[in-house]
Amino acid sequence: MITSLSNSRVKRVAALCNRAKARWEEDAFVAEGIKLFIEAPKNWLREVYVSESFMAKLKKGGKDDIMSALSQVKYEVVSDEVFAKISDTRTPQGILSVLKQPHYSLEDAVAKIGGSNPLFVILEDIQDPGNLGTILRVCEGAGADGIIMTDNTADIFNPKVIRSTMGSVYRVPFFIVDDLRGAIGMLKDAGISVYAAAPEKSVDYDEADYSKPSAFLIGNEGNGLKDETVKLADQSISIPMAGQVESLNAAIAAAILVYEAARVRKRGNKI
Amino acid sequence: MITSLSNSRVKRVAALCNRAKARWEEDAFVAEGIKLFIEAPKNWLREVYVSESFMAKLKKGGKDDIMSALSQVKYEVVSDEVFAKISDTRTPQGILSVLKQPHYSLEDAVAKIGGSNPLFVILEDIQDPGNLGTILRVCEGAGADGIIMTDNTADIFNPKVIRSTMGSVYRVPFFIVDDLRGAIGMLKDAGISVYAAAPEKSVDYDEADYSKPSAFLIGNEGNGLKDETVKLADQSISIPMAGQVESLNAAIAAAILVYEAARVRKRGNKI
Repeated sequence: MITSLSNSRVKRVAALCNRAKARWEEDAFVAEGIKLFIEAPKNWLREVYVSESFMAKLKKGGKDDIMSALSQVKYEVVSDEVFAKISDTRTPQGILSVLKQPHYSLEDAVAKIGGSNPLFVILEDIQDPGNLGTILRVCEGAGADGIIMTDNTADIFNPKVIRSTMGSVYRVPFFIVDDLRGAIGMLKDAGISVYAAAPEKSVDYDEADYSKPSAFLIGNEGNGLKDETVKLADQSISIPMAGQVESLNAAIAAAILVYEAARVRKRGNKI
Repeated sequence: MITSLSNSRVKRVAALCNRAKARWEEDAFVAEGIKLFIEAPKNWLREVYVSESFMAKLKKGGKDDIMSALSQVKYEVVSDEVFAKISDTRTPQGILSVLKQPHYSLEDAVAKIGGSNPLFVILEDIQDPGNLGTILRVCEGAGADGIIMTDNTADIFNPKVIRSTMGSVYRVPFFIVDDLRGAIGMLKDAGISVYAAAPEKSVDYDEADYSKPSAFLIGNEGNGLKDETVKLADQSISIPMAGQVESLNAAIAAAILVYEAARVRKRGNKI
């Protein structure tokens, strides 16, 4: 059992939790909690840490799913004090995984589209980790094929983002791009219609046709989409707002749009 | 200018910020920030506090809307140190309002329905302040007529809730009820169909008809709706989820449902 706060592995895992640079250098990230351990793809898992008190609970029985998952991996028990140091949460569940970062290629994803009917979300500079995680979760729920995000978007490997994905980070491909114009061009060349969530010259969101290959462009929380980005889209769409509401939260807007696409596709019509 | 941290008003406002009991006893709440000051109904405003450095900025000009709103009320300048004490945010904007709590009567609201086509959201024990505030905001955006919430729901006057409403708390009526069964009965007696967001015996959410008076029942983040609450509804509805998603965030689910109702009503049809 690791009990020393100055243990080099403890320091390393704490750095992976707290610093994007450490995650980037090691090509790894941290996922905390039971659900994120159980749902982790086994070939992504590098290390698993279990707190002393959580291990004592597990040994009392009744948590067969966790014990069974633990029996398939190598894990390390650490003192509760050490666990508090590597944990990002106030009331840790007592299990933390270190995983390799997945890398997806947008070129490959677009090449594989073939006769399918893809649905993408494109995020420009989303800043709030909770919003980003929630968008991944809702994209999985709506059956979207992936998320493209600018490299100024919040770090997807931030533990807050990972937690708020509720495991969707393991299943929704994401593409971090430094050339948004190029990425949008690639989608359009593949026959995907790109819709910008932006008020100018827009139609109501339910008047566009998402029954065919579609992508939704969602802008930064404070500023919305940049003008030059809006111009790259095939059509601007907006969600009507009653009262004095000036905008919706970015995750809420993304959810309404991807679920409208899912609804239309399920119904097989464009109304 | 108030400069003493032990000033009794300073202590009182800090208590209104931090303690539900203080808010309840004084029938008041705190709203921080420029937007929440400017949009505040003037007859709710009791006190306004401006930080010394924000006042200096205002005097330099260019903020005519704030100056004009301030000229219509009595306000007090406080030192930045005092402002930090009464503020709930890490980087305060420098303006904070104390307002009277509004009180709405569900009986009155239901009596006034007449020939209109109301849309309500009913929240059972929502715990996250950000979710609650976001739901108010999205309800205003979708044109909902009000929110009914159990008294075990997060305190709507918590400064975090107020901030995340982005001003909608001033405009969306809300009804805190200790008898959820009675409140649902009142809505049903008034001809409002009540839809429970719950998986058991549900139809897909887009298969119900929200073109007529409707209310959506949304449950607690962790546990969903209680079984006995689901039974009070006319129909259970669910949002289809692809992949391994087990549930959507409560605010996301509420948003998808109220916007589906708004969409159907705008279109004047039930598809």
